Amino acid sequence: MLDDTALDTILRAARTQNAWTDTPISAETLHALYDLLKFGPTSANCSPARFLFLHSRAARERLVPALSPGNVAKTMSAATTVIVATDPLFYDKLPELFPHADARSWFAGNAALAEETAFRNGTLQGAYLIIAARALGLDCGPMSGFDRATVDAAFFAGSGWKSNFLVNLGHGDPAAVFARSPRLAFAEACEIL
Amino acid sequence: MLDDTALDTILRAARTQNAWTDTPISAETLHALYDLLKFGPTSANCSPARFLFLHSRAARERLVPALSPGNVAKTMSAATTVIVATDPLFYDKLPELFPHADARSWFAGNAALAEETAFRNGTLQGAYLIIAARALGLDCGPMSGFDRATVDAAFFAGSGWKSNFLVNLGHGDPAAVFARSPRLAFAEACEIL
Repeated sequence: MLDDTALDTILRAARTQNAWTDTPISAETLHALYDLLKFGPTSANCSPARFLFLHSRAARERLVPALSPGNVAKTMSAATTVIVATDPLFYDKLPELFPHADARSWFAGNAALAEETAFRNGTLQGAYLIIAARALGLDCGPMSGFDRATVDAAFFAGSGWKSNFLVNLGHGDPAAVFARSPRLAFAEACEIL
Repeated sequence: MLDDTALDTILRAARTQNAWTDTPISAETLHALYDLLKFGPTSANCSPARFLFLHSRAARERLVPALSPGNVAKTMSAATTVIVATDPLFYDKLPELFPHADARSWFAGNAALAEETAFRNGTLQGAYLIIAARALGLDCGPMSGFDRATVDAAFFAGSGWKSNFLVNLGHGDPAAVFARSPRLAFAEACEIL
């Protein structure tokens, strides 16, 4: 079991960041981040998420036209912005990722199952990225407020990947964190049978 | 930053479990689990996931008709099985969860946006449940192999919640863990711009 400090770091005290210090993140840290999040479980190890790190200022400037106005300043001042994306053809990697069975065939002819599996498991991996970043001492600012079609045209015209959500990464400025919003009580969100 | 032991516990050494010891989980632990996972971030704090803990053997027996055959024995021997579900009417809680704006109106008249937001954020919360359970010293066995319509009819006819995925919880038997499958290399899953 994790100690209180670690529980605070990954969930209890961690907060979505709205402003950033100018401390950079190294490329080595981005590799360490992937090498941690990649171990999170996915269905049949399908691992459909793809991660495009917009590490240079020039790369982030290409993202600006797709952002909600309220997300522009914090994105441009973050050390890095990750586009958490999904590869719709994730199943072509299954012979490598799940060699025990012909898992590719479960999805290759079933577009609805492939799409649902990609969205569910790619999103799980996006959550693992958030937790892994916090575990490595980084702060996160996840964002859903952007135009997906614009992002996909700007960054994924070649690969066919689809954007899911964005995460700013860096070292946050605690003065810009909002007051914490309430969470649902156990009895509103859970039931024990 | 978390130490090596904690990183191993939440991601690096944690493994999907296929068999379980008979050590039970208390209802207090299920409350502690929710009180940890609930702090994970969701878009506009929308918190659409709902968690039905099938804690009694009788409750899990009602799940069996919906399970893939390979998932029956491990589910019946787990201490608890969680149905990670989603409330399609999650936006009715937004006046409580996000009092800063009329966030309910963003979703109440836009079924496509509501459905996508519920699936994305409910799945993020399912990942937080997996990590939170490991952080509290539990083992997990997430499962997608089940019939959603059967589960929804058996458990959610009254609430209208929709099943997303299942997670067995308990204390795993390390002898039943499979060899770890490979993960994609950084260059296959990531790019830095």
